[in-house]
Amino acid sequence: KKEAGATDDPYRNDPERSPLLIPSSKKPFNAEPPQQMLVDRFLTPNHLFFVRNHLPVPSVEPKDYRLDVSLDSGSKSFTYDDLKSKFDKRSVVAVTQCAGNRRSEMVKVKPVKGLNWGSAAISNAKWSGVCLDDLLLKQGVDIEKVRGKYIVFEGMDKQPDDSPYGASIPLELARMLKRDIIIAYEMNGEPIPRDHGFPIRVIIPGVVGARQVKWLNKIYFSGEESTSHWQRRDYKGFNSSIDWHNVDFDSSVSISQLPVISAICEPEEDAELEEGAEEVTLRGYAWSGGGRGIIRVDVSADGGKTWQEARLKPNGQSPYRSYAWTLWEADVPLPTGARSTTLVVKAVDISYNVQPDSVEGIWNLRGCLSNAWHRVKVNIPAES
Amino acid sequence: KKEAGATDDPYRNDPERSPLLIPSSKKPFNAEPPQQMLVDRFLTPNHLFFVRNHLPVPSVEPKDYRLDVSLDSGSKSFTYDDLKSKFDKRSVVAVTQCAGNRRSEMVKVKPVKGLNWGSAAISNAKWSGVCLDDLLLKQGVDIEKVRGKYIVFEGMDKQPDDSPYGASIPLELARMLKRDIIIAYEMNGEPIPRDHGFPIRVIIPGVVGARQVKWLNKIYFSGEESTSHWQRRDYKGFNSSIDWHNVDFDSSVSISQLPVISAICEPEEDAELEEGAEEVTLRGYAWSGGGRGIIRVDVSADGGKTWQEARLKPNGQSPYRSYAWTLWEADVPLPTGARSTTLVVKAVDISYNVQPDSVEGIWNLRGCLSNAWHRVKVNIPAES
Ligand SMILES: [Mo]
Ligand SMILES: [Mo]
Repeated sequence: KKEAGATDDPYRNDPERSPLLIPSSKKPFNAEPPQQMLVDRFLTPNHLFFVRNHLPVPSVEPKDYRLDVSLDSGSKSFTYDDLKSKFDKRSVVAVTQCAGNRRSEMVKVKPVKGLNWGSAAISNAKWSGVCLDDLLLKQGVDIEKVRGKYIVFEGMDKQPDDSPYGASIPLELARMLKRDIIIAYEMNGEPIPRDHGFPIRVIIPGVVGARQVKWLNKIYFSGEESTSHWQRRDYKGFNSSIDWHNVDFDSSVSISQLPVISAICEPEEDAELEEGAEEVTLRGYAWSGGGRGIIRVDVSADGGKTWQEARLKPNGQSPYRSYAWTLWEADVPLPTGARSTTLVVKAVDISYNVQPDSVEGIWNLRGCLSNAWHRVKVNIPAES
Repeated sequence: KKEAGATDDPYRNDPERSPLLIPSSKKPFNAEPPQQMLVDRFLTPNHLFFVRNHLPVPSVEPKDYRLDVSLDSGSKSFTYDDLKSKFDKRSVVAVTQCAGNRRSEMVKVKPVKGLNWGSAAISNAKWSGVCLDDLLLKQGVDIEKVRGKYIVFEGMDKQPDDSPYGASIPLELARMLKRDIIIAYEMNGEPIPRDHGFPIRVIIPGVVGARQVKWLNKIYFSGEESTSHWQRRDYKGFNSSIDWHNVDFDSSVSISQLPVISAICEPEEDAELEEGAEEVTLRGYAWSGGGRGIIRVDVSADGGKTWQEARLKPNGQSPYRSYAWTLWEADVPLPTGARSTTLVVKAVDISYNVQPDSVEGIWNLRGCLSNAWHRVKVNIPAES
């Protein structure tokens, strides 16, 4: 079934993937599910969950796995069995989203560097594992009192020079989230698939996917951010007048918590609606970072001239610790006599943050944070 | 000095005010400072702090003052002296902003109901008093365990039917903020001026001004929100297709934490710059609700075609508990040969939330939450 790779291909041991996934790159493997399937279920099935790999997928035998936690008081190693058997199991339902989700819309304004993601570089799963707090307490450490400014995570995925993938978040943010940060060994009730971090990944709800390190094998505290490329030279925002000739990555703040976003997943761009259709049913998702729940989703079938509220499907979480997405639907009348029209969606979070109107206003050289109003052009054939 | 009011004028005992304040209504008194003066100082002087009164200003003798705190276990009354002498003093520097700040820009799109505020219905002060947590602990109550869904605040300002001003916030939000919610008796080191709540007001950082009840004399917990007009029939957001004929206030979530905003306070709209000016210096503020610090302010002198970053003056607070504003300045080249141009500002908060591009997209019938990019048209006379 699997293509035989050359023996020197670092990706030769990558896992098999569902043929339903739509790749944006093959080595490393990155892919999103069909967007209509994405919103069929509240919890994204593991085989459809979007894949964002920066490097080859590590092959880890559970019996060989160790998680090293380094503290001033010394280092401690946990086995896979330690994590599964010596701690209470804690679960959180949370979205993981790539910073580049919806980047393909930004590319249309002006080229950017990055994978050409559609609207499905986002998924929602139930993660279970050990609460970060409990892990530290086991070593007699209270996260409120630990020294350092950042908590750093390293993965077992390696660059050609053998340095690992790494990321960090401010310790203050970790403290705010603490019982919600999960050292996860289960995804939707199953062992985590290899593409998603087997055997262990960290889940930091409300924060960009890039910080939720997969194949996690090291945690430590530091006075500075992770020194990895992805922390220091990527995953940062800039204004639209900054391009590669004048960018200073040190001048910008690393992306951690994400802003409010939404997308129409059905119908899709350039869809042909029914002949003479007078109404269209829209389906999609809305989400905000920082645990901010979605309080309203507005949809338009006339390019944004008139709006109506979509029906929200409550995610069962509180508005201030809302880490899961909110799926929505709306039946919207189509403009009379139009042969084509633009559908639009925009969402509002509990802090009344809104999405920006245009992609132009948020364009940035890496094509991150593409959360403008989502516009989908559709055609309405005349009745024959 | 004070106009003699008719003896039946409920506003006859209102305090005197600085002649520098620019009223948007006189009875009740509402006023903002000149916007250039607003950004001269990090802490807004008390006499220049914007005033938002819904009702006549109560006259309270400190010796008669009581704060009633009602709990399942019974009610307790605190005197002004109790609050000043029996608790640790705690301070927080925080912005207070009216939900209607910058409403005058929304009015230009389509009329709304509300005071015609400019950009200065916002101010920043150091508030000192008793931590809400400490007040409850004194009664043996842990806010983590108290019953109810909302914490309700009532003022001593009364409507003609004798019902008081009231507001509430979700108990979950109060728990998140707890040591930052202050039962304040000082504003910038002085007793709180009458217009701002003498002798006691509640400060809830990161939350809209309307919930930070002035002349506070009652706190209780409830399974539902405050039943006041201002909680239930005002200070809520809607999309731009909702107007007075189809509005359902029950369908919307009360405004608590506010979204990211910024404004240019100098130069002002229609200003004449120097003859043949090639550069302009902009000054203004940026702020976000929910304690989210400002990480970037972009300014443009060509209506938003090109942008540069403003110099931020650090507010000394952490990015996740940033309740004060961030003042900023920028020297921006003017478009060559232009006789007029539009200056623009937009800010980004720590969660990478941005401001919406247009007022049209966020227009709402009450003119709240007017946080679009701030645009200021200026003229550049030719060199004579
Ligand atoms: Mo990502
Ligand atoms: Mo207000």
